[in-house]
Amino acid sequence: MATARLRDVAERAGVSIRTVSNVVNGYAQVSEETRRRVEKAVAELGYRPNLLARNLKRGRTGLLALVVPELDVPYFSELARAVIAEARTYGYTVVIDQTDGEPDRERELIMRGASAALFDGVILSPLSLSQADLARRDGSDPLVLLGERIAESPYDHVAIDNVAAAYTATEHLLDLGRTRIAAVGDQPYDTGETAQLRTRGYRDAHAARGLAVDESLVVATPRFHRSDGAAAMAALLDRPDGPPDAVFCYNDLLALGAIRTLLTRGLRIPEDVAVVGFDDIEAGRYNTPTLTTISPDKAAIARLAVQRITGRLGDGPQQPPVELWAPHRLEIRESTAGS
Amino acid sequence: MATARLRDVAERAGVSIRTVSNVVNGYAQVSEETRRRVEKAVAELGYRPNLLARNLKRGRTGLLALVVPELDVPYFSELARAVIAEARTYGYTVVIDQTDGEPDRERELIMRGASAALFDGVILSPLSLSQADLARRDGSDPLVLLGERIAESPYDHVAIDNVAAAYTATEHLLDLGRTRIAAVGDQPYDTGETAQLRTRGYRDAHAARGLAVDESLVVATPRFHRSDGAAAMAALLDRPDGPPDAVFCYNDLLALGAIRTLLTRGLRIPEDVAVVGFDDIEAGRYNTPTLTTISPDKAAIARLAVQRITGRLGDGPQQPPVELWAPHRLEIRESTAGS
Repeated sequence: MATARLRDVAERAGVSIRTVSNVVNGYAQVSEETRRRVEKAVAELGYRPNLLARNLKRGRTGLLALVVPELDVPYFSELARAVIAEARTYGYTVVIDQTDGEPDRERELIMRGASAALFDGVILSPLSLSQADLARRDGSDPLVLLGERIAESPYDHVAIDNVAAAYTATEHLLDLGRTRIAAVGDQPYDTGETAQLRTRGYRDAHAARGLAVDESLVVATPRFHRSDGAAAMAALLDRPDGPPDAVFCYNDLLALGAIRTLLTRGLRIPEDVAVVGFDDIEAGRYNTPTLTTISPDKAAIARLAVQRITGRLGDGPQQPPVELWAPHRLEIRESTAGS
Repeated sequence: MATARLRDVAERAGVSIRTVSNVVNGYAQVSEETRRRVEKAVAELGYRPNLLARNLKRGRTGLLALVVPELDVPYFSELARAVIAEARTYGYTVVIDQTDGEPDRERELIMRGASAALFDGVILSPLSLSQADLARRDGSDPLVLLGERIAESPYDHVAIDNVAAAYTATEHLLDLGRTRIAAVGDQPYDTGETAQLRTRGYRDAHAARGLAVDESLVVATPRFHRSDGAAAMAALLDRPDGPPDAVFCYNDLLALGAIRTLLTRGLRIPEDVAVVGFDDIEAGRYNTPTLTTISPDKAAIARLAVQRITGRLGDGPQQPPVELWAPHRLEIRESTAGS
């Protein structure tokens, strides 16, 4: 079969070539009925827009890049699923790359994408990009930052309120009568603003009740993996002044690692040590005990990010960069509630 | 600093521009010593090939596509990490897309990539592509299939020996004296050749000892998620003839879901029911109990796949499609060994 062209689709759908083009390119000014007719013809004929030709003509590729530190950290793979689903509703294909949080790799990706005009937009969850790095970016394609806020950046930013979320998690443990609550996952300021915000929420929750924070219970970890949580928990259990009675971990992987250490040492959860995580990944919902956690609304994060990209690709006047906040909630499960 | 060009790298490394080009483009005819010298100069100067220019000149983009069913299935995200690492050693960037195992989406991706010349090669882990789908693909860019074998396809294929792996897993349970071993994760033939191969290995292990398989213990699941494993295990426990004394699950997520059900029902692992998974994802290594599993060599799968792609991008004569096998091994942990 010869390759179907735009005009073949138009003929079959009984519409103009321009209308087919509008549908294929995801423009809004097409009635739902017409869109359905065109999409049916596209499917029947197996029509596929020539991306390279489109690229040349419109300077667009139909591709969004999602750049995350680590795909095998479930929070990012679950977020990727949400971004892919959201982008598809706008006719965009998402391609994904991971940086391992290496500054060079992150820089390379935001620069390379721009210079090669491969992507119509980039959604980036940076671990270590600085303001200076971003300022050097000369691409005009939209960039949306996820998670970590980079002060004074000229780009849109989507996040949850990390201070409020950590406050809620800590408050929950205080409400349970816990008095020695460890915070696991702190990071130095230059590479971990998100972690710093969570530590602030942890401190604020103590301060609101007039409680002093035992600084030795605020524990930094090299990364946010299960092995880091397991090691941090082991160190906490070996303290001469005895173990904490609760642990707030800055992500679920740290919490699952900490739980493994606690169970291996014969401690009961939550009776001896209550555990709260952050991210609400699926692994925590099937763990024994199931994991109490802060659940960020990943679908909302994806929706806000993709909307900012597509909005900036329109023909209207460019708006100034904004900060958008997605909701979160505390999910109480067995690791604190005990049932 | 001005952007480094090919000639800057050549000067610093003390080689010709052509040699730098050979190294950067991953051609083979460069000595190891020269390659190292060029790579050092590339790193020191921060040289990055201009993708658009390269694309125009050579019809190449420097991009490999990795297409997997589901990124939030940890096996695929761990495999993605391995593919990204391997591709980087050849100077390739990997972009990733997920299909959710939808046949339309898989077809669209293998076709679109080819027609748009976006990718220099595609590594595809198909769930539901048929021989006919692949035959319709007209792109000349290399495609490597992972996992499921599609008979008579004109493409390279990389997999592990699923029959042998399932045989080993079942044999391990038989060696422990288990007599009622359930197999969880069977799939109908048209969409699940991999599952069929694992069922065959499970049957063969029984047959080798002259044991009959209780067909009612071979359980199909809609997908390979934790929720499917939890539901299948619940159904097995509710059987009038009593629960099985062991379960071989066709991936670790199914096994982790099954373990959750067993623990919720108050059963002991492995004393009452031993559990074996498949994939060796990190979650199984930190679960309590830790999960005995078949560990496919993901780094070898990635290496073989990327080597096939880069080999086919060279200028030499094209070789016929091959089937390549990556190794696997049984990792014995608490869910069968009890300690």
